[in-house]
Amino acid sequence: MSVIGFLDYASVFIFALTGGLAASRQQLDIVGFAFIACLTAVGGGTLRDLLLNRDTIFWIAQPTYIGVACAAALVVFVTAHLFESRLKTLIWLDSFALAVAVSAGTGVALALDQPALVVVLMGTITGCMGGLLRDVVLDDVPVVLRQGELYVTAAFAGATVAVLTRPLFAEPLIALALCSGVTWALRAGSLAFGWRLPVYKSRPPRQ
Amino acid sequence: MSVIGFLDYASVFIFALTGGLAASRQQLDIVGFAFIACLTAVGGGTLRDLLLNRDTIFWIAQPTYIGVACAAALVVFVTAHLFESRLKTLIWLDSFALAVAVSAGTGVALALDQPALVVVLMGTITGCMGGLLRDVVLDDVPVVLRQGELYVTAAFAGATVAVLTRPLFAEPLIALALCSGVTWALRAGSLAFGWRLPVYKSRPPRQ
Amino acid sequence: MSVIGFLDYASVFIFALTGGLAASRQQLDIVGFAFIACLTAVGGGTLRDLLLNRDTIFWIAQPTYIGVACAAALVVFVTAHLFESRLKTLIWLDSFALAVAVSAGTGVALALDQPALVVVLMGTITGCMGGLLRDVVLDDVPVVLRQGELYVTAAFAGATVAVLTRPLFAEPLIALALCSGVTWALRAGSLAFGWRLPVYKSRPPRQ
Repeated sequence: MSVIGFLDYASVFIFALTGGLAASRQQLDIVGFAFIACLTAVGGGTLRDLLLNRDTIFWIAQPTYIGVACAAALVVFVTAHLFESRLKTLIWLDSFALAVAVSAGTGVALALDQPALVVVLMGTITGCMGGLLRDVVLDDVPVVLRQGELYVTAAFAGATVAVLTRPLFAEPLIALALCSGVTWALRAGSLAFGWRLPVYKSRPPRQ
Repeated sequence: MSVIGFLDYASVFIFALTGGLAASRQQLDIVGFAFIACLTAVGGGTLRDLLLNRDTIFWIAQPTYIGVACAAALVVFVTAHLFESRLKTLIWLDSFALAVAVSAGTGVALALDQPALVVVLMGTITGCMGGLLRDVVLDDVPVVLRQGELYVTAAFAGATVAVLTRPLFAEPLIALALCSGVTWALRAGSLAFGWRLPVYKSRPPRQ
Repeated sequence: MSVIGFLDYASVFIFALTGGLAASRQQLDIVGFAFIACLTAVGGGTLRDLLLNRDTIFWIAQPTYIGVACAAALVVFVTAHLFESRLKTLIWLDSFALAVAVSAGTGVALALDQPALVVVLMGTITGCMGGLLRDVVLDDVPVVLRQGELYVTAAFAGATVAVLTRPLFAEPLIALALCSGVTWALRAGSLAFGWRLPVYKSRPPRQ
């Protein structure tokens, strides 16, 4: 299995876990778990493949991705009661999924020789859109937009690092590893230590 | 007209009726009715066609689909006050639209010789996504996710039946009829008799 | 730059301004501004390009569109406190973006020799979907659906005017200018003078 294939599988599995946790908070049945898990897991990569006009969406070419997502949903259905806080677990798992998915999206776009800005955007979209779809469908506040947390920022920074470091190493894996590392470090620092960018707050929102 | 073409038209018309009913509950004007009707009616099939990378989206190839959806919107605009409960009517109509749309999606994917799992997923997506889009845009609880009802489950089961029975009969119509029958029976049983899968409820959701 | 290219840039810039204003109401950080600005700015045209199966999405072919959207986000981040009412500014800016985007969508579909109804739909979709995505992601009431205002109606009317007047003039720009003019006039008239179509209101919504 290629490195990008492995990254896709890993991000699918971890995002599917977060989808299952979100479904458990809504008390859905097992098929609801699987549905939200699949939506979260393949949503970002599907959008990436549609935008890049790839001949076949990655999970249609290899439906085992769907099997992996459903397996993750089942794992959560059986074990979710073991977690002290499902929301906290969800958010931390989501940080790993984000880090891996940004690499997966970046890797695909790099392999297609897209221009640098497009590569960065594909990494960002692949990372952020699965969680966005999960939250919009379940009518939660999208984690992408939670005030003053680094999320899109982390994805964007990680993908940028991949593009900047790719020419430095013969082995593409190094740039992708740096990408995941930077993405996760920024996201985790935001969750653990409150790292953030200044928010817009000159005045409260008015009607 | 081919069988699949007829199924597409029928599901477009019935889903458009549900879109019109949803619009009536929001008291939109006639163009709002038509907009929601079209979104609901062609949303699932459009996603199917995008994912399968078909050369032309079905309603761009044949814009009469849009005319059918707009006609349904007009019918509802004129007659919605005749229904005792528009929500109840909407939900039951939606069950028929689901049953027909799952067959339409399954039939297209079967005709393209997709692998079994992809066929099942295309049937499920075509059936479920139109109603999901309708409910997300109108900010209702997606019918797909209503706690403890069979919806995705019904679609998935119906599409699976189509894939399993297709090799048994020379006439493809039979497998699609079984597909619609199973989908509708499960959905209707869930609405009428409370059939459901066990939901996840080991603990109430916490923050 | 072609006329259609200019229209695309103009609608991207103005829609991005509205995305930035919506982000300021949610007190996001600068990357959140850029994210919502890009989503709003390129959402409608991206859907148009996907549906028409164009080889390359317009902003992947020319990533400067993304730069324009981010510049608009930065402008709003720095200046939003100067506006007396950000919501009112947003809604009026949105009316200009709508007028320009309908022309951009219509122009692309006309250039691809699509049938008349498809041209009208592409103009309407390009105009309306960016704002719809913005509002769904931020969980606002979609401006597309605000009760009794002309929005989809204005887009639809403008696109129809473009299709009807295109054969009358050798210069395609004239039809597109009429399209933008009619779209904006109807939308602005709705905002300023309360122009509207009759809404469905035979009975209040019931459960």
